Amino acid sequence: MLKDAPIGVFDSGVGGLTVIREIIRQLPSENVVYFGDTARLPYGSKSKDTIISYSKQIIHFLRTKHVKAIVIACNTASACALDAIAPSLDIPIIGVVRPGAVMAAKATVNGKIGILGTESTIGSDIYTTVLHDLNPGITVVGKACPLFVPLVEEGLLNDPVTDEMAARYLKAMKDADVDTLILGCTHYPLLRSTIRRLMGEGVNLINPAYETAVSLREMLLAENIYRVEGKPAYQFYVSDGTEKFSAFANSILPVKLKEARLVTLE
Amino acid sequence: MLKDAPIGVFDSGVGGLTVIREIIRQLPSENVVYFGDTARLPYGSKSKDTIISYSKQIIHFLRTKHVKAIVIACNTASACALDAIAPSLDIPIIGVVRPGAVMAAKATVNGKIGILGTESTIGSDIYTTVLHDLNPGITVVGKACPLFVPLVEEGLLNDPVTDEMAARYLKAMKDADVDTLILGCTHYPLLRSTIRRLMGEGVNLINPAYETAVSLREMLLAENIYRVEGKPAYQFYVSDGTEKFSAFANSILPVKLKEARLVTLE
Repeated sequence: MLKDAPIGVFDSGVGGLTVIREIIRQLPSENVVYFGDTARLPYGSKSKDTIISYSKQIIHFLRTKHVKAIVIACNTASACALDAIAPSLDIPIIGVVRPGAVMAAKATVNGKIGILGTESTIGSDIYTTVLHDLNPGITVVGKACPLFVPLVEEGLLNDPVTDEMAARYLKAMKDADVDTLILGCTHYPLLRSTIRRLMGEGVNLINPAYETAVSLREMLLAENIYRVEGKPAYQFYVSDGTEKFSAFANSILPVKLKEARLVTLE
Repeated sequence: MLKDAPIGVFDSGVGGLTVIREIIRQLPSENVVYFGDTARLPYGSKSKDTIISYSKQIIHFLRTKHVKAIVIACNTASACALDAIAPSLDIPIIGVVRPGAVMAAKATVNGKIGILGTESTIGSDIYTTVLHDLNPGITVVGKACPLFVPLVEEGLLNDPVTDEMAARYLKAMKDADVDTLILGCTHYPLLRSTIRRLMGEGVNLINPAYETAVSLREMLLAENIYRVEGKPAYQFYVSDGTEKFSAFANSILPVKLKEARLVTLE
């Protein structure tokens, strides 16, 4: 049964686990195969051609697991590789950028949307491009937050150091009076409570991981391949550092990860 | 004249510039060609075979610039690749690990030496291995400081956030009563004043970049290829992000870097 085939999800490392978390919550019977390219991260500093090449290798690997759909759970790979890969693929594929941008464009009232992301995501202007396609009148304010990923990976989710860095990064957003803020890196939803406290209740916080799971469910329903019931199975593969990956996964996922397996792609 | 040939120096990114800074100070007439592998950093999470392969590619590139000697200005590459590469090379080569370890073993009185480094350097136990070769009685205390590199790369050299993280990382060193501390990552000398303030005047801070320049000068003198006088020339090559590299280099080097050139290695 095609409905029982797993969904393939990939990211440059652990960040995509926030997308897995939303899939587990919103699509609780779906089987999932995750690949984290921990040996070759970060993708942010690599060229577009390299990101496309890596993404193709990963999709090739995921297809050996007979996946029925692909989720690019990485802002950089979504920005660089989705349009290049989708046309030649005979199964559905989505990235994290468009679902987040679509919800932000719906949510804003004053037309001022902020984007937090890595240097490469902000530098690519991908969110600005997608948002202006949706509504050319939107004002977009981007801010790169390069210390957020290492702070999250060190587990400093509720910590005075993280609070201080967040206050500095968010100043531009408060000064620009944005009413909607996209957490444009898969690590950032883990800092949601800190960002919420600093921005106040009046600002819409958009989690692309959440919106991607919503879009994924709609896509599977439209293709008539959504798995409605049954116990799910989760498989995790990484290209380096299985223990560090498992520890991080077990700290943020609602299910216990038994093991991550090592795979080398070339 | 072989003395006029440049020294080839390489690192996974910008960290090796602290070695360049010491070469400029201590070997002021030497010509230098630097290669920073900014597209493929960090090396810390990559396998030993990959590091050896990358190092060979970089040395091949540096030899096209007719270098007379090679400095591996990266702790990870020194740990993983030096012993594999040196035997087949017909020009002198040194890394940063041994010079720092030798000075630390000389400097300690109570026999307790601390090592600060990246996760991979601390995990490799390379400093412990070299120190125990020098003196099996030495007690070695290692501490990985994963936030130091991103903090330095963000320019937060004198900042309350960096002070707070340094206080946490250095607690293990104070508790262990080390009298000598190796700054075992090329970025860390840029945090020297913070570390000095927290550890106090009684602790020897060993900067492997400084010791490497001392050893390099000795090596060139022994080979009779030391350039005693003349105006030096500096050339910088990177595999990605020339502007970011130049900005960082100009913030820490005593000479103005005109430009960094982009090179793709495969």
